Amino acid sequence: MKTLHRLLTLVLVLSLWGLLSSTLTVRPVNSQTVPAILLDGFTPQASVSERSREEQFRAAPDANSAREHLRRLTAEPHVAGTKEDYATAVYVRDQIRSYGIPAELKEYDVLLPYPRQPSIVEIVGRRRERLSVKEVIVPEDPTSSSPKIIPLFNGYSPSGDVTALLVYVNYGLPPDYEALKKLGVDVKGKIVLARYGNSFRGVKAKVAEENGAIGLIIYSDPADDGYMQGDVYPKGPWRPESSAQRGSVQYLFQYPGDPLTPGKPAIPGVARLKIEEATDLTRIPVQPISYGDARRLLEPMRGPVRPRGFQGGLPFAYHVGGTDDLRVHLKTEMDYQIRKIWNVVARIEGNGERDRWVIMGNHRDAWTFGAVDPNSGTTAMLEAARGFGQLLKNGWKPRRTIVLCSWDGEEYGLIGSTEWAEEYADELREKAVAYLNMDAAVSGANFGASSVPSLWKLIRGATRDIRDPKTGKSVYQQWQDRSRESLPEPELTDAQTGSDVNIAEARIGALGSGSDYTPFLQHLGISSLDMGFGGDYGVYHSAYDSFHWMTRFGDPTFAYHVAAAQLWGTVAMRLADADGLPFDYVDYGAQINEFFTESVKTAKRRNLSAAFDEKGMSDAIEEFSREAGRVEKSRQETVLEVGRKRVEANDRYRGAEVRLKRINDALLATERALTDVRGLRGRPWYRHQIYAPGFYTGYAAQPLPDFRQAIEDRSTANAKEALDRIVAAMKRATEVLRKTRD
Amino acid sequence: MKTLHRLLTLVLVLSLWGLLSSTLTVRPVNSQTVPAILLDGFTPQASVSERSREEQFRAAPDANSAREHLRRLTAEPHVAGTKEDYATAVYVRDQIRSYGIPAELKEYDVLLPYPRQPSIVEIVGRRRERLSVKEVIVPEDPTSSSPKIIPLFNGYSPSGDVTALLVYVNYGLPPDYEALKKLGVDVKGKIVLARYGNSFRGVKAKVAEENGAIGLIIYSDPADDGYMQGDVYPKGPWRPESSAQRGSVQYLFQYPGDPLTPGKPAIPGVARLKIEEATDLTRIPVQPISYGDARRLLEPMRGPVRPRGFQGGLPFAYHVGGTDDLRVHLKTEMDYQIRKIWNVVARIEGNGERDRWVIMGNHRDAWTFGAVDPNSGTTAMLEAARGFGQLLKNGWKPRRTIVLCSWDGEEYGLIGSTEWAEEYADELREKAVAYLNMDAAVSGANFGASSVPSLWKLIRGATRDIRDPKTGKSVYQQWQDRSRESLPEPELTDAQTGSDVNIAEARIGALGSGSDYTPFLQHLGISSLDMGFGGDYGVYHSAYDSFHWMTRFGDPTFAYHVAAAQLWGTVAMRLADADGLPFDYVDYGAQINEFFTESVKTAKRRNLSAAFDEKGMSDAIEEFSREAGRVEKSRQETVLEVGRKRVEANDRYRGAEVRLKRINDALLATERALTDVRGLRGRPWYRHQIYAPGFYTGYAAQPLPDFRQAIEDRSTANAKEALDRIVAAMKRATEVLRKTRD
Repeated sequence: MKTLHRLLTLVLVLSLWGLLSSTLTVRPVNSQTVPAILLDGFTPQASVSERSREEQFRAAPDANSAREHLRRLTAEPHVAGTKEDYATAVYVRDQIRSYGIPAELKEYDVLLPYPRQPSIVEIVGRRRERLSVKEVIVPEDPTSSSPKIIPLFNGYSPSGDVTALLVYVNYGLPPDYEALKKLGVDVKGKIVLARYGNSFRGVKAKVAEENGAIGLIIYSDPADDGYMQGDVYPKGPWRPESSAQRGSVQYLFQYPGDPLTPGKPAIPGVARLKIEEATDLTRIPVQPISYGDARRLLEPMRGPVRPRGFQGGLPFAYHVGGTDDLRVHLKTEMDYQIRKIWNVVARIEGNGERDRWVIMGNHRDAWTFGAVDPNSGTTAMLEAARGFGQLLKNGWKPRRTIVLCSWDGEEYGLIGSTEWAEEYADELREKAVAYLNMDAAVSGANFGASSVPSLWKLIRGATRDIRDPKTGKSVYQQWQDRSRESLPEPELTDAQTGSDVNIAEARIGALGSGSDYTPFLQHLGISSLDMGFGGDYGVYHSAYDSFHWMTRFGDPTFAYHVAAAQLWGTVAMRLADADGLPFDYVDYGAQINEFFTESVKTAKRRNLSAAFDEKGMSDAIEEFSREAGRVEKSRQETVLEVGRKRVEANDRYRGAEVRLKRINDALLATERALTDVRGLRGRPWYRHQIYAPGFYTGYAAQPLPDFRQAIEDRSTANAKEALDRIVAAMKRATEVLRKTRD
Repeated sequence: MKTLHRLLTLVLVLSLWGLLSSTLTVRPVNSQTVPAILLDGFTPQASVSERSREEQFRAAPDANSAREHLRRLTAEPHVAGTKEDYATAVYVRDQIRSYGIPAELKEYDVLLPYPRQPSIVEIVGRRRERLSVKEVIVPEDPTSSSPKIIPLFNGYSPSGDVTALLVYVNYGLPPDYEALKKLGVDVKGKIVLARYGNSFRGVKAKVAEENGAIGLIIYSDPADDGYMQGDVYPKGPWRPESSAQRGSVQYLFQYPGDPLTPGKPAIPGVARLKIEEATDLTRIPVQPISYGDARRLLEPMRGPVRPRGFQGGLPFAYHVGGTDDLRVHLKTEMDYQIRKIWNVVARIEGNGERDRWVIMGNHRDAWTFGAVDPNSGTTAMLEAARGFGQLLKNGWKPRRTIVLCSWDGEEYGLIGSTEWAEEYADELREKAVAYLNMDAAVSGANFGASSVPSLWKLIRGATRDIRDPKTGKSVYQQWQDRSRESLPEPELTDAQTGSDVNIAEARIGALGSGSDYTPFLQHLGISSLDMGFGGDYGVYHSAYDSFHWMTRFGDPTFAYHVAAAQLWGTVAMRLADADGLPFDYVDYGAQINEFFTESVKTAKRRNLSAAFDEKGMSDAIEEFSREAGRVEKSRQETVLEVGRKRVEANDRYRGAEVRLKRINDALLATERALTDVRGLRGRPWYRHQIYAPGFYTGYAAQPLPDFRQAIEDRSTANAKEALDRIVAAMKRATEVLRKTRD
């Protein structure tokens, strides 16, 4: 069998050579025209062996094994810093070790609050009416009765005890407060009731505080996250009446990680801020409640009928309140301590380029059981590790080092990943190839991804080689088909010709924040991606994000856990083994151009465009794109030359390997060059000039962040300064690419 | 006082001459540059006297008088053909007569069904569960306890008695049934439950029938028409839990009016169809219910969770049903009879052009009390008539005849207006200047209008001269300001320049159907408009469309009834008294061009554009617009010449009056020329080539109807034929305009 395999390989390689030689003489190779058997960045012979190795790898992940991992990981609630959390760290470490991969715990001492006791939310009037603020036991779901489930609370809410009138502020974003002002409703000195959605919850806390509110209650409205989406748990996958969404209200758009050690690792010997000095913490008590409880607050509200856009899915007309009819008491009692958290870091040393690291990361801590968020990802990581282990046993050594990270404390504010990234910042800046994140890897069957544009082709390529369990098509095909179905007709076909040839591919999103790629991309400038399989997921951060939910709705056969492991591992292997790194900065240039065009449109509408040098930026983008195109062409040619050199031992290709190394180094350094050590305006921790979470979105990216924010703020001075910095970053990046020239 | 007034008038006229003479010598007069004091179509001296007369007129309508009319009109339910309806006819006739205007009843014998007894809707299972199908008494609203309120029913539903499984079909339109088919749900032999909205209800019946349903229940979902819009009656103006929407399910997109005499008047001696021969009637029983009742059907439904867009505002996830879990019995028992209805027709004879008729129309019959729909309009008509009466007493005689029509039977299918228009079709084609409709004239403070584009300037001009009671601004200004507020930012300012100078005016809608302008515009080709003041109106066609509702929410001070009367009368006076009729076909040409461009875009997307002669149509539009521009210029110049002739008795202007008459005649005939005697495809009654209700919208206009429908149906042959007919109509209209040339 082995001999036959080698023979076939030889035939294949030889025929590919024929194909490529002809291609090469006619015109530059371009990734679109390379035969499908070839892998971007691999020589023809390496493509063949890589494909064969990948197939071995993808055969390893197993549904039963995945099910068992998830069952073990979700057996108990494992909030960051608890002994149950520690037990999962040990489980992950030991599993990875058992696959033959060295793994260690890595500990940090960070500020973590737990609720000292359940919060109180009550209506104060002639008689007190206390809300339950508790998720009920679902008989079908065995873990839902666990006494260890942490009470409903928001991470980093301070302790507080306030009584005041209540105002309903819709999503709690600036335009909502403006709409209330138009109605003459002021929230100063009042408690505000906001619904989840349209932003990271920390943003709601910040905006409430800025507007003078003294407390914030956040609930899940059934229009956004409940029965209006579909049947509720346990009948369906959506959020039931008593369920509420836990979650951090850290101002992660300021900086993530341990609040007391911004920019530094939370290890012994590092000076800590006092809590009062931390600028990423809210000062007003914040508490999540269910829509069952929210109904009891909303229904008796008086005051004006809600403005347009404020109505939710409870069965009555919402009013905005603020009148004497409703006075509310909110009491949160938190236990703030420096506590230990435990990352697990495993490492498959590279053979050849061991100082180049391909990093896979997923967090492990959960608000409750975390079946979807995050342990579907942990399960995928363990299954991928098992696959790597088998390859290792068969003699494989990746060219580059693969690092597998199981982060702790993500839920509180990306703490484990941030502290680690801060501790090893210099080394990571030098060595990291890319950071590959999976958080909630599986809640359904719909693939989705966000990444820097240089990785788009890599993601698309890998999804072509993974089978979608439900349809039997490739993940790529199913992803495209779904995306096409959701397009309105006019976008489906070209208006001029009526043809449907030129349909854009499914969109790969921009990275904002809300998961562990943030320190890597936005603090250190490491190319990153985040991906997973989504679905109807209405138990986010609730007691029902459980093994039972997963087996009933999310992925009953665990086939998507297997697919997630296959995909993640495949991407990592391609980055670890490629001769020439498959990073395409032409896509990056085009994306920046799109971001810029959009921003300029807004700026023009607001009469701000005279303030900045549009042409300077357009020129910088064009220069960057041109250089990126040249490097891309050179990379592909050089990979082929390296291939020929290996086969023909021809002197002509002598410099090829050196040149390829120079290109590879530049491809890493280009992303780094897009960061600015001065950081973004008012938030120095965020250094990336293209991607950051928005101040008022929190999760969602605000591309060209400072420039966009300046336009939002109608500040011409800031717009000019921001764009100058972006242009400088573009020029640095262009320079890095240019240096690869002979 | 009188001498002073004349002196001032003289000074004003003389100074206007100076202004205009200079304008005239420099460039053609254009309505934008005419000084604001001048009225379009009036000579300078006539402008002054018309303005003075209008001011007298507008001083007449009175809030107390309006209140008393509405109180009298809404004292009892007055469904078409009942003795209470007859009493309102007599009231309107006698009131108008009391103002010194001759008025007569005009009777027709038409097919009208009443419910013989309340319909039955019940769940059939182990035990029967009967829905209430009844609007409850609201203690605050005295008329809500009237025993004369007609039970909930749909006009022209047949009698029927069916028991079957129930399927929820969302809005009951073709895409909804397609979505159900994708889920594997067939409605054949089943009863369907549709929600009101997005189309005329007759369309829902037709589509249900086409899909093989054997019964249709229509309910008002709280998301569209209930608590999600705001507080419900009596706390607020919106539809309460037990309230349902009555209304006709006639296929009025086939033809309106008496179902048995299409195209002919329902008078003695005219042959009648048998009911089975009428093509505008549905064959399946149809019944409206409230959301209180609908909840009892929707909540126990099983089958697939609703597709995207199907979820309404009841507090659970909707399912589409169709399973054995829910079997429903629907029984409707109707009493179909030929019954008498009574229009009131009043006439102020023209002095000079008595064979030119300016027609004001409003219906009088109501499903219950009709405070908004239609008697706010009846009240406005009576107050306008009172104003006309005072002018008549002061010696005014309009140049042209003003006809005031109080229609009966509109609710069943525009019956009174249609029969009248059919009876006097030839005379109307010859004599009608325009038809001015007000149906539900007042349900709030927000002005809105629909009309043929030739009347846009007239409407805008008149609204400039009416004071908006709430803000003190002109109705025009308030209308524009509101419209601007609702625009998203990008449309507010010009993207290129950031300027906000070129903002389009508030949109005046296209006339579809659903009120009495239809026979005039779409059957006879008479320029028409429809207008009124809207607001939060959640009691449409319910027992709560009452005097109490109006005094509580719609127009407590009756100031908007006064404004409606002022506006309506002002428009009528301007048309009745103008020297040169203020019709601008340049706007019409531009609007047709916009419609055509839109349609062509869709056709191109669907690869249908090769089938028809785009250039032929573009040329026809251009020709029409050019000729319209020439006539508009000529009209304005000729009006001034007529003015000069009167002042100067100069021989130079000898032919002016003859030319102006020729222009006026052409301006009427142009709209007629847009009709085609062959009618539209499959619905010969509808003759207008530009405006008709859509087959699947019913209320909403489908501009360029046959062409648009052909594109919808992807029929290239039909598209070609339809466009050929439209082009022919455009050419006829162009020819009419061309004939005004010297």
